[in-house]
Amino acid sequence: MKKLEERIRQEGEILSDTVLKVDSFLNHQVDTALALEIGREFASIFEGKTITKVLTIEASGIQFAMATGIALNVPFVYAKKKKAITQAEKVYTAPVHSFTRQETYQVSISQKYLGPDDKVLIVDDFLATGAALVGLVQIVKEAGAELVGVGCVIEKGFQEGRGLLEQMGVDVHSLARIAKMAPGEIHFTEQQSAERLKEKV
Amino acid sequence: MKKLEERIRQEGEILSDTVLKVDSFLNHQVDTALALEIGREFASIFEGKTITKVLTIEASGIQFAMATGIALNVPFVYAKKKKAITQAEKVYTAPVHSFTRQETYQVSISQKYLGPDDKVLIVDDFLATGAALVGLVQIVKEAGAELVGVGCVIEKGFQEGRGLLEQMGVDVHSLARIAKMAPGEIHFTEQQSAERLKEKV
Repeated sequence: MKKLEERIRQEGEILSDTVLKVDSFLNHQVDTALALEIGREFASIFEGKTITKVLTIEASGIQFAMATGIALNVPFVYAKKKKAITQAEKVYTAPVHSFTRQETYQVSISQKYLGPDDKVLIVDDFLATGAALVGLVQIVKEAGAELVGVGCVIEKGFQEGRGLLEQMGVDVHSLARIAKMAPGEIHFTEQQSAERLKEKV
Repeated sequence: MKKLEERIRQEGEILSDTVLKVDSFLNHQVDTALALEIGREFASIFEGKTITKVLTIEASGIQFAMATGIALNVPFVYAKKKKAITQAEKVYTAPVHSFTRQETYQVSISQKYLGPDDKVLIVDDFLATGAALVGLVQIVKEAGAELVGVGCVIEKGFQEGRGLLEQMGVDVHSLARIAKMAPGEIHFTEQQSAERLKEKV
């Protein structure tokens, strides 16, 4: 998604060769118009597949799951990182290690909101080590739901996340794939937009 | 908002006289179409006021801030409950006690995304004790921004939140105001919809 790559070049802050900050437009302050476009792009990439539910993890996946749910006209579910006292029913859980927060937590989803009839598109802001997404994929499998694919806004292509997901047989699409970055420079992997993908079919 | 009240009657689970679960359509699984309507309703209530930014707190405020940002065509910012390693810059903070999670945490917003030029509408899923919202109001004041008002999806009218906010001079609007509830019964406060409010003007 060219527009997203341009925005990352303009506003992204590269703090090291692994840490990219995009909190002026994606995950602290959110450009709602861009988020909607991101949702439409995911819907377009997975066009032709039946999707009954979008799944993400709180907090920074929510705006993109919402946008994708809007584009597909389906509900979304967000996995929780902590159990609330109102969450007493049976849940699916998976352990996730967060490198940006330096902790391991259990993500959980109520068993009421994911089951064998669901065809699930997982959406998140970043794909890097893949920890959160692998956890969500495990939960989808545990629920007996069908996993249609994973859509990530930004992929750090130099980390192991994509490899881990592809080993699990997951169809992964990212809108901006970073091949390499360092303070002052960023290189994206050339990729096909949804439009070009469709022309090929 | 009649439609919201009906949905709460149909799907809300009243666990006690203070705890209402709405996680089948608002804050775990999210009905995206309803969330968009909620956003339009907030936009309608505050119509005629200039709003440059919607503000909320992660995680369950995000879908409604997003919907309101879409309706108003402005960005939204969500306050974070924990500091990420990518968040090194100056922040505004306020302490917030969560009764559902039984802990006190610092909420923070980067000073880059809130300032004296902003006219802010705060949006959240619940108004009960008002703890989170009072924290956000303090941050808006600290930033020197103008607070246009607070919009809540569901208000527990029998708790102190509204009173605390009104003492601070805040214009508070909720889409469903619960006067009283107990397992098996719920009573809403009669209120004027945005349409009826406008007819009066």
